[in-house]
Amino acid sequence: MSMSPQVETAGRAGQPTTSRLEAFSDGVLAIVMTLLVLDLRVPEADQADKGLAHYLFEQWPSYTAYVASFLVVGIIWLNHHAVLGLLARADHGVRVLNLLLLAAVSVIPFPTALLADYTAARHSAADQRVAVLVYGAVMIAMSVLFNLLWRRIRSHPELRHPGIALADLRTRHRRFNAGLALYPVVTLLGLLDVRIFLAGLLALAFLYLLPTADSDTA
Amino acid sequence: MSMSPQVETAGRAGQPTTSRLEAFSDGVLAIVMTLLVLDLRVPEADQADKGLAHYLFEQWPSYTAYVASFLVVGIIWLNHHAVLGLLARADHGVRVLNLLLLAAVSVIPFPTALLADYTAARHSAADQRVAVLVYGAVMIAMSVLFNLLWRRIRSHPELRHPGIALADLRTRHRRFNAGLALYPVVTLLGLLDVRIFLAGLLALAFLYLLPTADSDTA
Amino acid sequence: MSMSPQVETAGRAGQPTTSRLEAFSDGVLAIVMTLLVLDLRVPEADQADKGLAHYLFEQWPSYTAYVASFLVVGIIWLNHHAVLGLLARADHGVRVLNLLLLAAVSVIPFPTALLADYTAARHSAADQRVAVLVYGAVMIAMSVLFNLLWRRIRSHPELRHPGIALADLRTRHRRFNAGLALYPVVTLLGLLDVRIFLAGLLALAFLYLLPTADSDTA
Amino acid sequence: MSMSPQVETAGRAGQPTTSRLEAFSDGVLAIVMTLLVLDLRVPEADQADKGLAHYLFEQWPSYTAYVASFLVVGIIWLNHHAVLGLLARADHGVRVLNLLLLAAVSVIPFPTALLADYTAARHSAADQRVAVLVYGAVMIAMSVLFNLLWRRIRSHPELRHPGIALADLRTRHRRFNAGLALYPVVTLLGLLDVRIFLAGLLALAFLYLLPTADSDTA
Repeated sequence: MSMSPQVETAGRAGQPTTSRLEAFSDGVLAIVMTLLVLDLRVPEADQADKGLAHYLFEQWPSYTAYVASFLVVGIIWLNHHAVLGLLARADHGVRVLNLLLLAAVSVIPFPTALLADYTAARHSAADQRVAVLVYGAVMIAMSVLFNLLWRRIRSHPELRHPGIALADLRTRHRRFNAGLALYPVVTLLGLLDVRIFLAGLLALAFLYLLPTADSDTA
Repeated sequence: MSMSPQVETAGRAGQPTTSRLEAFSDGVLAIVMTLLVLDLRVPEADQADKGLAHYLFEQWPSYTAYVASFLVVGIIWLNHHAVLGLLARADHGVRVLNLLLLAAVSVIPFPTALLADYTAARHSAADQRVAVLVYGAVMIAMSVLFNLLWRRIRSHPELRHPGIALADLRTRHRRFNAGLALYPVVTLLGLLDVRIFLAGLLALAFLYLLPTADSDTA
Repeated sequence: MSMSPQVETAGRAGQPTTSRLEAFSDGVLAIVMTLLVLDLRVPEADQADKGLAHYLFEQWPSYTAYVASFLVVGIIWLNHHAVLGLLARADHGVRVLNLLLLAAVSVIPFPTALLADYTAARHSAADQRVAVLVYGAVMIAMSVLFNLLWRRIRSHPELRHPGIALADLRTRHRRFNAGLALYPVVTLLGLLDVRIFLAGLLALAFLYLLPTADSDTA
Repeated sequence: MSMSPQVETAGRAGQPTTSRLEAFSDGVLAIVMTLLVLDLRVPEADQADKGLAHYLFEQWPSYTAYVASFLVVGIIWLNHHAVLGLLARADHGVRVLNLLLLAAVSVIPFPTALLADYTAARHSAADQRVAVLVYGAVMIAMSVLFNLLWRRIRSHPELRHPGIALADLRTRHRRFNAGLALYPVVTLLGLLDVRIFLAGLLALAFLYLLPTADSDTA
């Protein structure tokens, strides 16, 4: 029985395992996704004098930013789930990198609220660009930290389940590398117009939700 | 030992399992249920000048909307728990449909707050109808996504635990189909009067909480 | 291997288990406990003109209500943990009663905020009594629902792990019965003075945190 | 099979295990970390009249306090994870001490918001010192409770996984003892200037994130 991988991963006395790391990360990701709704607001007494429908239509940037950020965190979850699934055990480096990744993800409700508010036409183009830069910076920090975590797992075969070769990780590696380039590109395009930024975030999200050759096995 | 189902579902290196999918979904559902309370508010200095009891009685739409939404999410949990329990493993399609279902569920605190506020008599009937439509639309999106998830699991026997036949899923299938019809009906009735909508939501919730022939086995 | 209890409880295809019920309940209880902090507020510009220390001292009812509610939910967790630990599997009744119990617990941040606000001397004694009654009513609903859950588990030996006799549950049964009486008593006393109510809640909490003869085995 | 430690820790009927204690603690810690973001606020209409970038730069105390508190809770999680990993089972004392530790941790968003607000130059030095003292008091309470939990686990070998000797716990013991001294020192230094306090919190956090000789085994 000591041959089967699930026994290898089960917690021995005082030994690090990945199940609590996963449960904790799941908790943080689930809460971030759910806290986003707190920025969808019921109109104040004087905000809906043209009718509720009119008010709600005017709030489209809030809904778009909500959907974009929800999907961003959802995709982080899908990738995190796949990557941690490779691990037989976590060392200090994995735990600390994971913690820093969660820090970047936890911040997302703030740039989301900023972007939702500053997409409105009443704000100056300069301020809109600042909102795009803040959101973009968090995305970039997140993808850099995710890649650091990924590279640590990739370069430490002793942490992984036995029988996973570097070749098996190739598709995923290319995809995560692409992420490093795509967020800066979308951010730069977003400096032209905040609506291009929102569209780019949604396009990236739907792209990442498409299945890949390896999405059912890794 | 490789025959027993719980070993089949246990995580092998890099293979998708359902336990993290369940834990993550549980997290999102638990948080949504608990965030609903943030819309029950202590009166401001000038809101309770007729006494606290009078103020609290006037807030009945908030409490009704709270109970209705809490039960809606609770029933989603009961059904989600039963449906995911059929799965031996999750593929990319299941994970993405589950993510989209969670997106619809996560939004619920917003239409709940809208409905609670717009049930008050000071709002126009037109605005009340908009609030009903927004809540109804989220319910319909949620039941459609739940049914897509259900249909994927139903049509992919290779994802399910061995030994579950299509016939075993018949009662549940009829019930989920009914859900697809019931939310639009309650929404249409709710256009007549927002209080009919609230009553309809509560009636649906209690109906779904009743045990069925298969509720202890699936 | 089919003899060992943990295998009996492990999820077979389509069969109800208690692990997801526990995880979900843990999620709700953890979130309720943590949301309580959102009612501890930083003073507005004009609220701390006598100095921050003076402002913070004046907020003692908030801190007391915070501690009382945190401990109430913590004790619910301790008891819930012990009671669900007896279960080998959950049926529909257990799941629905658990859901209703979680509904009562999820509401706690609202009466906590109400009590914290209405303890201040600026409110009338009548309004303070209403706040005590609302908090008391939630406590009573919670203890009634907990007892209904307990009684279902007690009267359905087929749901429990094998080898637990009714006699083993006696101490716990007496204690839960006491809870049914104690919350109404504290609420009635609280009608005299809101500070007696706060003191009573704290006294009950510390009483329940004391170890009992069976607290390490059940 | 009854020899392997993971079976010893698996839940037997009515026996306390540590998995639900860990899951519940993870939930509370994850929520506290994620709630911190609610204090990063989008500027009101009249707050950003010098431009969004200017407003955001002025909010540096909020970001610093956010990072410091996030890391404080993250480090608590790392240590909690390591310490509970030593336990084969939890008794009533461990559960109650853990609950009190979680109470102290749950409060953190409040002193964080206080510190972020009172670091601004518009507040008096006296009020800033009060904010430092409140934050420091919560840190000290947290480290005392963590040490009480640690000492209980250290002095009760029967609760631990077999094969862990006192000698194995020595490095960790020294480190936790240091924590008891370091938070009071940082608090005292913080009375000189709130910015020294923020710097001290960050320095402590980075110090604790460094790996130690035993950080991969316990």
